[in-house]
Amino acid sequence: MCESNIYVTPAGTEDEEGQLFLEAVDKLLPEGENVWRVTSIFGEQKIINGRIKSMHLVDHKILFELNQ
Amino acid sequence: MCESNIYVTPAGTEDEEGQLFLEAVDKLLPEGENVWRVTSIFGEQKIINGRIKSMHLVDHKILFELNQ
Repeated sequence: MCESNIYVTPAGTEDEEGQLFLEAVDKLLPEGENVWRVTSIFGEQKIINGRIKSMHLVDHKILFELNQ
Repeated sequence: MCESNIYVTPAGTEDEEGQLFLEAVDKLLPEGENVWRVTSIFGEQKIINGRIKSMHLVDHKILFELNQ
């Protein structure tokens, strides 16, 4: 399975690691300007108020920077 | 490997399939407002002027809507 884990960092930091927000994410859909609905392979849904900072799919890692 | 294929659609269409833009993408990095640098597992890099419309990672599919 090729889901990714989502990590988040506060706005304005240089942190490239972040804190784990949701594991095993399958779907990411924009809900508005810097608002995303993410859904895991287990059906868990969460909203992220932030923008994508980086995606490394082979490493299963997507990093968001949260809105201020 | 958990790379995705990138598809693109013109701005303003309801097309949810799109046309293949780049296969086997590992990294996606924002370069600005609705500008992305994407890199495949083979090292091929391309710039996309568009916004992410949907991501379905288990299906290895990321759809962009191109800027107008």
